[in-house]
Amino acid sequence: MAIVVVGSLGLDTIETPAGRAEEVLGGSAAYFALAARHFLPVSLVAVVGTDFPQAARAMLDHPDLDIEGIDHAEGRTFRWEGVYSKDMNSRETLRTELNVFERFQPELPDRLRTLRNIFLANIDPVLQRSVLAQVRQPRLVLADTMNFWIQTKRDELLQTLKKVRMLLINEEEARDLTGEPLTHRAARAILELGPETVVIKQGEHGAFVQSADLYFTCPAYPVDSLVDPTGAGDSFAGGFFGALARMGRVTELNLRRAAVYGVVLASFTVEGFGVTGLLRVEREEILRRAEAVLRMSRFSLDDTARILR
Amino acid sequence: MAIVVVGSLGLDTIETPAGRAEEVLGGSAAYFALAARHFLPVSLVAVVGTDFPQAARAMLDHPDLDIEGIDHAEGRTFRWEGVYSKDMNSRETLRTELNVFERFQPELPDRLRTLRNIFLANIDPVLQRSVLAQVRQPRLVLADTMNFWIQTKRDELLQTLKKVRMLLINEEEARDLTGEPLTHRAARAILELGPETVVIKQGEHGAFVQSADLYFTCPAYPVDSLVDPTGAGDSFAGGFFGALARMGRVTELNLRRAAVYGVVLASFTVEGFGVTGLLRVEREEILRRAEAVLRMSRFSLDDTARILR
Repeated sequence: MAIVVVGSLGLDTIETPAGRAEEVLGGSAAYFALAARHFLPVSLVAVVGTDFPQAARAMLDHPDLDIEGIDHAEGRTFRWEGVYSKDMNSRETLRTELNVFERFQPELPDRLRTLRNIFLANIDPVLQRSVLAQVRQPRLVLADTMNFWIQTKRDELLQTLKKVRMLLINEEEARDLTGEPLTHRAARAILELGPETVVIKQGEHGAFVQSADLYFTCPAYPVDSLVDPTGAGDSFAGGFFGALARMGRVTELNLRRAAVYGVVLASFTVEGFGVTGLLRVEREEILRRAEAVLRMSRFSLDDTARILR
Repeated sequence: MAIVVVGSLGLDTIETPAGRAEEVLGGSAAYFALAARHFLPVSLVAVVGTDFPQAARAMLDHPDLDIEGIDHAEGRTFRWEGVYSKDMNSRETLRTELNVFERFQPELPDRLRTLRNIFLANIDPVLQRSVLAQVRQPRLVLADTMNFWIQTKRDELLQTLKKVRMLLINEEEARDLTGEPLTHRAARAILELGPETVVIKQGEHGAFVQSADLYFTCPAYPVDSLVDPTGAGDSFAGGFFGALARMGRVTELNLRRAAVYGVVLASFTVEGFGVTGLLRVEREEILRRAEAVLRMSRFSLDDTARILR
């Protein structure tokens, strides 16, 4: 039943209008795992350097997280530095040091090859396929991607899309990938490329999920204080995939519920720098925010036919 | 029970990736009235020039539209010309000729001064107040505004906001007006300025409605074909205000339903150039799309507490 995530771990230096954090734990695998652990145990497959600090490691020290699949390679850990715009809707990357991540060749330990719920975080689509080939009987597979791969490895990405059941992608990337300016049309075009389900992340506007017979829009949970948007997408992925894998069956209703848990987990992340918002999450608060999303989007049309002339 | 709209009528020349339309009926009052008439009769208060063509007038010729309040002034009709970007998310104004609209001093005929549902479309906030002063017992008042007034007549706009019960504004304008980068925080800040309810238009992302005890997000209806976004906001206003005025009581549930009818009416508008999409609307299709919006946003959390560890 557990989940495997293959992705990055790194040290982020982040500046937002709310402040600055230096060399804090980051990377898609960290955000995903800290969100998904509320639903199922998570095994991380990633690489760090010999300089990976004890403080960062301690944040992943949790009974529900299996960190034995993290490779400690000779060299420095992946680093990223970025600064967000005043409204935090855009960011500029000041520095990317791939370091040991550049030679990342994910090898699943034998005991993880029988796990059936796989999140392929945003890494080279060639590596995503190589991971899939190592899994004996994948059941739920969710892949993420980004503009860099869409632009530089499009053919490889298209090969990967033929093999994954679900794609997670943000709105702008979905348009880039398909050339369709309307997001819901871009989603439909992605379904032609292989995935049965596509989940489009829309930041402050929430997310939507589309499959053959489902079109579900989920608003974002309105946080009081936006501190750092880094990792919101991977935290959404953790909440979404964690809830879906835990519910077990991919039904229309479960996909809707999973998206709600996705926006809820993302809402915690953006309230603190790095993973600090996620580390504070309590079970009761997850449920409270999910109920709030329900109230935000609920309505009824009973008897409204009569209001039309 | 009827509605009065005070706004613009004009001739628009529009270029979008889907084609071009020249000198077609436009203006906030036209879009609003053609949308709101599905719920209640609408009286238009506006000005056109002596060159206002018969073809444009014919589009407003409908038993539910009262066009006697349209002033025919000496001179040319208001004209606007614009071209939309490839994804239609932005547009460039090529030409604005105010013509007779420049001297628009709305005077409500006596018989309209007793009407109680007033939509103050996007005009000078000074004129909006002058209209309000002419209405004997306003009940429901919805005002629209835009960046131009926020930037050039901010103090006048703030005076107007103290007198209107509801404000309709788009997302970017809400941020401009309040300086709050998060839309829901901008909405809350607007409630401090006077209105009891604020409705934020979010284009492809729908709309949301906020009041003291309500925070409702409504997705947009996903149109198959986006032809011309001009007038979508005023059509939303027509659907929203028409439905709300017809339902009569401003309750939490009615505000939610009204927003749904808003996005539905806007969806017809964007499917054709100018008002042509709105002219084709059939009652059954309004209901069908409202039901579709319900299915798009519906979910339940029953039994999901057990999926959390």
